[in-house]
Amino acid sequence: MTSPDPPGTHPAWLPPEAFRPIGSRRTLVLGDGLLTETVHDEAARACARYGGHVHRHTRNEPYDLVLALTTAEPLPGPAQTVLDEFRSTTGPPANTIGGEGYLTARRHGVTTVLADDAAGLLYGLFHVVRLGERAFTEERPPERHAPTMRRRMLDHWDNVDIHPVMGQVERGYAGGSLFWRDGAPRGDLARVRDYARLLAACAVNAISVNNVNVHATEALLLTDRLGDVAAIADVLRPYGIRVHLSVSFASPVTLGRLPSADPLDEDVRKWWADVTERVYDTIPDFGGYVVKADSEGQPGPFAYGRDHADGANLLAEALEPFGGVVHWRAFVYNHRQDWRDRSTDRARAAHDHFAPLDGRFRDNVILQVKHGPIDFQAREPVSPVIAAMPATHLAVELQVTQEYTGQQRHVCYLAPMWREVLGFRPWGPDGPAVADVAGGVSGNGGGLVGVSNVGDDPYWTGHPLAQANLYAFGRLAWAPWTDPAAILDEWIDLTFTPAATGDTEPAATRETERLRHILHTIMDDSWRTYERYTAPLGVGFMVRPGHHYGPDVDGYEYTPWGTYHFADRDGVGVDRTRATGTGFSGQYPPAWSEVYESLDRCPDDLLLFFHHVPYGHVLHSGSTVIQHIYDTHFAGAGQAVEAGRRWEEAAGLVDPSLHARVTDLLAEQIRCAGEWRDQITTYFFRKSGKPDTRGRHISR
Amino acid sequence: MTSPDPPGTHPAWLPPEAFRPIGSRRTLVLGDGLLTETVHDEAARACARYGGHVHRHTRNEPYDLVLALTTAEPLPGPAQTVLDEFRSTTGPPANTIGGEGYLTARRHGVTTVLADDAAGLLYGLFHVVRLGERAFTEERPPERHAPTMRRRMLDHWDNVDIHPVMGQVERGYAGGSLFWRDGAPRGDLARVRDYARLLAACAVNAISVNNVNVHATEALLLTDRLGDVAAIADVLRPYGIRVHLSVSFASPVTLGRLPSADPLDEDVRKWWADVTERVYDTIPDFGGYVVKADSEGQPGPFAYGRDHADGANLLAEALEPFGGVVHWRAFVYNHRQDWRDRSTDRARAAHDHFAPLDGRFRDNVILQVKHGPIDFQAREPVSPVIAAMPATHLAVELQVTQEYTGQQRHVCYLAPMWREVLGFRPWGPDGPAVADVAGGVSGNGGGLVGVSNVGDDPYWTGHPLAQANLYAFGRLAWAPWTDPAAILDEWIDLTFTPAATGDTEPAATRETERLRHILHTIMDDSWRTYERYTAPLGVGFMVRPGHHYGPDVDGYEYTPWGTYHFADRDGVGVDRTRATGTGFSGQYPPAWSEVYESLDRCPDDLLLFFHHVPYGHVLHSGSTVIQHIYDTHFAGAGQAVEAGRRWEEAAGLVDPSLHARVTDLLAEQIRCAGEWRDQITTYFFRKSGKPDTRGRHISR
Repeated sequence: MTSPDPPGTHPAWLPPEAFRPIGSRRTLVLGDGLLTETVHDEAARACARYGGHVHRHTRNEPYDLVLALTTAEPLPGPAQTVLDEFRSTTGPPANTIGGEGYLTARRHGVTTVLADDAAGLLYGLFHVVRLGERAFTEERPPERHAPTMRRRMLDHWDNVDIHPVMGQVERGYAGGSLFWRDGAPRGDLARVRDYARLLAACAVNAISVNNVNVHATEALLLTDRLGDVAAIADVLRPYGIRVHLSVSFASPVTLGRLPSADPLDEDVRKWWADVTERVYDTIPDFGGYVVKADSEGQPGPFAYGRDHADGANLLAEALEPFGGVVHWRAFVYNHRQDWRDRSTDRARAAHDHFAPLDGRFRDNVILQVKHGPIDFQAREPVSPVIAAMPATHLAVELQVTQEYTGQQRHVCYLAPMWREVLGFRPWGPDGPAVADVAGGVSGNGGGLVGVSNVGDDPYWTGHPLAQANLYAFGRLAWAPWTDPAAILDEWIDLTFTPAATGDTEPAATRETERLRHILHTIMDDSWRTYERYTAPLGVGFMVRPGHHYGPDVDGYEYTPWGTYHFADRDGVGVDRTRATGTGFSGQYPPAWSEVYESLDRCPDDLLLFFHHVPYGHVLHSGSTVIQHIYDTHFAGAGQAVEAGRRWEEAAGLVDPSLHARVTDLLAEQIRCAGEWRDQITTYFFRKSGKPDTRGRHISR
Repeated sequence: MTSPDPPGTHPAWLPPEAFRPIGSRRTLVLGDGLLTETVHDEAARACARYGGHVHRHTRNEPYDLVLALTTAEPLPGPAQTVLDEFRSTTGPPANTIGGEGYLTARRHGVTTVLADDAAGLLYGLFHVVRLGERAFTEERPPERHAPTMRRRMLDHWDNVDIHPVMGQVERGYAGGSLFWRDGAPRGDLARVRDYARLLAACAVNAISVNNVNVHATEALLLTDRLGDVAAIADVLRPYGIRVHLSVSFASPVTLGRLPSADPLDEDVRKWWADVTERVYDTIPDFGGYVVKADSEGQPGPFAYGRDHADGANLLAEALEPFGGVVHWRAFVYNHRQDWRDRSTDRARAAHDHFAPLDGRFRDNVILQVKHGPIDFQAREPVSPVIAAMPATHLAVELQVTQEYTGQQRHVCYLAPMWREVLGFRPWGPDGPAVADVAGGVSGNGGGLVGVSNVGDDPYWTGHPLAQANLYAFGRLAWAPWTDPAAILDEWIDLTFTPAATGDTEPAATRETERLRHILHTIMDDSWRTYERYTAPLGVGFMVRPGHHYGPDVDGYEYTPWGTYHFADRDGVGVDRTRATGTGFSGQYPPAWSEVYESLDRCPDDLLLFFHHVPYGHVLHSGSTVIQHIYDTHFAGAGQAVEAGRRWEEAAGLVDPSLHARVTDLLAEQIRCAGEWRDQITTYFFRKSGKPDTRGRHISR
């Protein structure tokens, strides 16, 4: 069954064929600046392949596509018409397109993209690529597109050295790092450039290039090895992507040989100011610092009796003169908790630490908050921190790499989960949503951050279908209200562009539709499938300790990590209510604290996150907890089998090596889902003694 | 609390002071051969320190000590008298002292040691060292000492390369390897020589120098890197220790580039014959091969459709011309078992595989059988293989390194466990014991093998008190019926020889007696203490997977390793009876199968190894299973605390750095024992719902 990987790097959602509609036509690119050159180069490359033409100056000839900065003078007639139409239907200041935004229309046979800045023009180009032939066949009125999130960022947990436990990429499931190999830069900047193209095509505009756990070698990226970072920045710059760096809070001591890293120490402030100035001398558009402080062993301000506002402001002060930002992670908790102590609650930790600091952070601090209160489980409530700090710029952190969602061996399309998170309204149905908080009023929110799922694997993401998660992350950061199924359609259409199969067009279209149907069947509900066969009802963390793959119900139950389910012979779940539990539920605004605290109103899928209930407790679904556990696990594992069966039908519709890779991975997913089903059902049968009312086989 | 390690290597049970009684007297050493030179050198070194004299030829002067081979002519008068006395009271052939044996006596003020070979003379010298001043103050009749086990061997699970998971020494808890470091010989042959002295002093006469899991580099020790082995052999030889080598069954393929390692293939036989001849060209007294085949991923004869007799005989045939032996490990089981399958039983595996092969092994094959059927748990029944193969030379394998007994962070004096194993009579009270099987008729048994607990730690064994396990291993291999407390006394007297404290003698003697009392209090029952606070009633394997330290009740419950407890809300244990279980109990002779199968007769401490019983089952002790679990865990953890308290009283009685090391380790033992107590009691309370009748605190 196993076939070789593709001979080169898989083109992901930018196969050459996706550019055929542009490449076979006449294009005009107008405007100045580095990114406008990128737009031109992209069009020119397509034209070189498909016989079209691209020009940088208006000539006396008709164009199929005009890509122009609004500052370009004069605009060709059709473009000016579109701009006028846009301005006539909106008033100032909305009559500006805005940073990174673009205006697109097709009028009288000319497709037009206009933007106030070159980044917008680049994103507009990729919009045309997404539309494909439709961009040139359907008239359409002016549409303004602008990002909801100002900063759409991927954090790479890549190590420079190979870490003895975590390897080259912490929680990476796609081979090595794109940037580093065994202590040195990987050296393949062409691959980094290809990566930048892919990111620009889904509008990611920032990356951090090293792990938030900053080890000794990685700390030097800030100083001695800054040139390695600059080399990456140079390759990313033409695609509108700024480089950020994870730094160690202890750097003044470890790198600067100061006696302290106290954020209120003058020498420490000066050290950061000087170092930061040197960073900007080398990388003028450097994005800023990412910091994991006082978390899981990383140093932080607590060592000096300071709080996290002191810590974050120290770095923000150094970055401020250059327009940089500090992403300060809110992932602070006690990882040496006593499992015997049922009053301490890791879920409370971020709110306990950070909510009291609201208003104390400098304007260029972005507090980076994991979407859930624990740690990227398949099901968690939204973090209450997001509603608790109105005077702070908050970024929401998602985990694109599938640490807890199948490690890129399982199909798990995460956009539906992220869409739920972004659409959650912490203050109730009439209040703003998480996407509004992260987007901010007029775009000044902290944005969206994803932990990258990319490595040097030929398919970029290990599992070829996990490319869709990377793509969807960028698209949701741009437009969080988009339907995940529509994003999947975009990804399918680009990635499996028909001409790639070499078939004639009508047959190819039919095949694409068959493939699209298969992929939707496999992927649309795959996150909920994964949820079904793993930890039930929001309880989480029933994974093997350390690597976090596969089931181990008690694996974390008696550890210091604060991740417990408290299953006994009578019931299961964590009481986080104010009345009888840890009080975590009280960290939410009343609209949700009242829901979560109420056994009657708490959503089934979060029941065990908020309540410890008997196995016989009846859910809203009408099922008991124990029967729900049995039913969902049999169903989820069955759905994995079904996904495997459906994928067989995709043979011949995709590249054979890609098909083989996914086939192999599905076999592992089916095995692992069966293992989850069996361990969970046996565990809870042994504990509860309650038989499956449907009489299926559960090992004793 | 933490103090530095001793400045040099700790002398263990051979401090210079232990040689003072010899070193301050006049000694005559008579006889030829390398080991007789060693005897002379040992005495000479002592005399150089303490002012005595040692001679190699009889002079006309009185001696305090005569060490002579019986072949030496003429023997001095007192020695001849002793020999005559011995011969007059025994008849041929018993009137020979025998290989490695010695005759010792003190008559008319002269202490005499006689031996038929130089190894016996060396062991007789150390006998005199053990006696100390008593050797020269108390008249004693001739006593013949001879080893029960012909081969007393330590297996080093040392890797040449640092293994990415297992490190330099697999399951080693005493630093690095004495032999290897990071891919090369460690180079400190003086340390190896010191090790050889220690081993000779407890009569170990064979070691294997590399891990039974033979990785790529280690495989080369057989060929390209044989010189590294020869260098070790050269240093061990003067102390009567032969070197053995763990080899890979796949060597003809991996090293010899043959297409097969099939034991019946002529080219394979020739390859092993040629390689083995070269080994003996280089190391004429090479001991032989150690093989772990078809076990936990190691290659073996199954790959060629051959059985383990075919495999073992292949190597035995190659070794036979040179007098070498092959230690073939019986540790063969399915480590990819399905936890759902309650009929498969890892405990059965060795007997299932090997018992049918009895009689088919060549005479120089030693089948090396772990003492229990699973894997060195704190409590297991004796392996039924030991009673099942009368026509095979069987060696019993013990684990001196404390993989499952506290990893040299816990005090766990193992001699009482080993003594129980060696004294077990598989055929009933009138039949031979395990020691008789391993010793064999007239010493032709397979002997005793221990997995070494030694590393490059300054105290040799990490935990200073774990030295006693190494010492006791050798002593029990020599004389298996010795009381473990008496062995501990020997170790204490040697290791903490009074003069080492620098005090005057009467005070020193009083202090030694205090220390002796403290050490017996801490160590005599320490194995049973460890058993109490860990896995109950023989069920075993409630350890953290991978490293095997600390509790994780379900850690192996849903894994492929075949190590289950099957605890549910009603009961716990493994039904291994013939009537309703796996039938393992039927592998024993009737005297024991009937005992083990009977709920009434099965010993409490093995109950859960053989039976699945309700928590309310009443033990012979009168307690229920659940109450026994609670009681033993509270008691065992309390005993660890008590050991810590007693050790405080040893301050001033031992070297401060040794005291500090043990103090630190006891703190960890106390912590860990408390963790065991709490996890086990909470786990079983959550499952059973049964409260502690004594009302102690158990976390919910």
